[in-house]
Amino acid sequence: MPHAINKDTQVCMSLAGRPGNTGTRFHNHLYEALGLNYLYKAFTTHDLPAAIGGIRALGIRGCAISMPFKEACIPLLDGLDPSAKVIDSVNTIVNDNGCLTGYNTDFLAIAYLLDKHAVSSELTFALRGSGGMAKAVAFALRQAGFSRGHIVARNPVTGPALAEASGYEWAPSLEGLQPQLLINVTPIGMSGGPEEHDLAFPEELIEQARVIFDVVAMPSETPLIQAARKKNKPVITGAEVVTLQALEQFVLYTGIRPSDEQVQQAASYSRNP
Amino acid sequence: MPHAINKDTQVCMSLAGRPGNTGTRFHNHLYEALGLNYLYKAFTTHDLPAAIGGIRALGIRGCAISMPFKEACIPLLDGLDPSAKVIDSVNTIVNDNGCLTGYNTDFLAIAYLLDKHAVSSELTFALRGSGGMAKAVAFALRQAGFSRGHIVARNPVTGPALAEASGYEWAPSLEGLQPQLLINVTPIGMSGGPEEHDLAFPEELIEQARVIFDVVAMPSETPLIQAARKKNKPVITGAEVVTLQALEQFVLYTGIRPSDEQVQQAASYSRNP
Repeated sequence: MPHAINKDTQVCMSLAGRPGNTGTRFHNHLYEALGLNYLYKAFTTHDLPAAIGGIRALGIRGCAISMPFKEACIPLLDGLDPSAKVIDSVNTIVNDNGCLTGYNTDFLAIAYLLDKHAVSSELTFALRGSGGMAKAVAFALRQAGFSRGHIVARNPVTGPALAEASGYEWAPSLEGLQPQLLINVTPIGMSGGPEEHDLAFPEELIEQARVIFDVVAMPSETPLIQAARKKNKPVITGAEVVTLQALEQFVLYTGIRPSDEQVQQAASYSRNP
Repeated sequence: MPHAINKDTQVCMSLAGRPGNTGTRFHNHLYEALGLNYLYKAFTTHDLPAAIGGIRALGIRGCAISMPFKEACIPLLDGLDPSAKVIDSVNTIVNDNGCLTGYNTDFLAIAYLLDKHAVSSELTFALRGSGGMAKAVAFALRQAGFSRGHIVARNPVTGPALAEASGYEWAPSLEGLQPQLLINVTPIGMSGGPEEHDLAFPEELIEQARVIFDVVAMPSETPLIQAARKKNKPVITGAEVVTLQALEQFVLYTGIRPSDEQVQQAASYSRNP
């Protein structure tokens, strides 16, 4: 298949502890649909500084950064876009002639989706989770003007820390909360995980909520999203986040914004191996 | 086209001051013909140590090394195969789980061709040139048992140095020589060069020679090779060297030896962009 590769082909890649195929399929599908002389390949590494040095030295155009490299890569870059600076986390590197800039397109995607779905910043929220992605969501909420909400996390270190950093309250559990916006940023409902069939929020909270946002992307229709749809609640899915953040990477790497139809086709292709 | 790329795709590459497409086309054609999950991409770099570090850190399976990196890369590797050690020049790196070994498949190809064409080591020879490729040829002649010959090079430093290193005599010109084996390792006859239409050896020397070997590969039918064919002399062409050295790289990277027909198809494809 890679007959078309030549000396002028631009290379984009990803670095992850456990590389997958979703990004590879999304980007390569769009390159082909748009007739761009690019290729995309997923890598892992045991030596992050040397891998980043290789990206710079080989002129790799862009690199997606996944766990566990999102913070560790920062001192190896030449600069940070505000999207990465605000949450001290990089999921995208753009290489402009050897100058590496870190972005966070998860943050950009979440901020965009809150706006696109017209989620009122007057709503109270409960955000379950306190990891890197929870940080991106919390700061996107802050940027969008949300003033009342809880970071809900059992972890007595990361939970309060994220709450303090983002300016919200910490709650070790959902007990006593009646949030209008429910956001799951834990692995609950994730395919193949131990809580695959669990609901991230109880039925009664879903019932009284106004909007439900689940960051879990595999499957897109998590138990939480399914329960919310049954109650005719507006939802934002992890598939939207994943597609949108990959699209923003694509635009950063190529300078080209594909049509909505092209993006949906690439997203559908990427999710059905 | 690169739809088939996935997380398990092995990557091979090249590093050259001026990347071309021949290796890319040769290797990718064979990967496809043999159904191998590999891809090949040509790169250049301004930072060789970082590029080699990237090869190691990203698990790039193999890398062809061209001018001007063939000697400079040696201190960056973990070991040298005898083919590279004998001439202090690497044109191929193989990465075994982070351990980088340098090979020289030009040397291997030349040694193999002298044997395959049954060139008698009793012949006297004149080798024109004193660069890296001339070194590979001279040491292949030495290994094949040739005892009488001249390194013919105007350069008063590199000419005598190569002659001494390989155990042959130096001659600043062809004057007075009557070699039985003529070997051109200069750019004379190379397509696009200033001596594109010139003969690397005069007609009278071609007439009295027994075998003519031209390392120039583009075109394969140089003026020297054409003149030799007209006189019904046995020839060894640069195209044979290029194909064979690339084949040996392919075998080192994949562990698979394609059929002669597959190699010829890939070689033909690689030379006709």
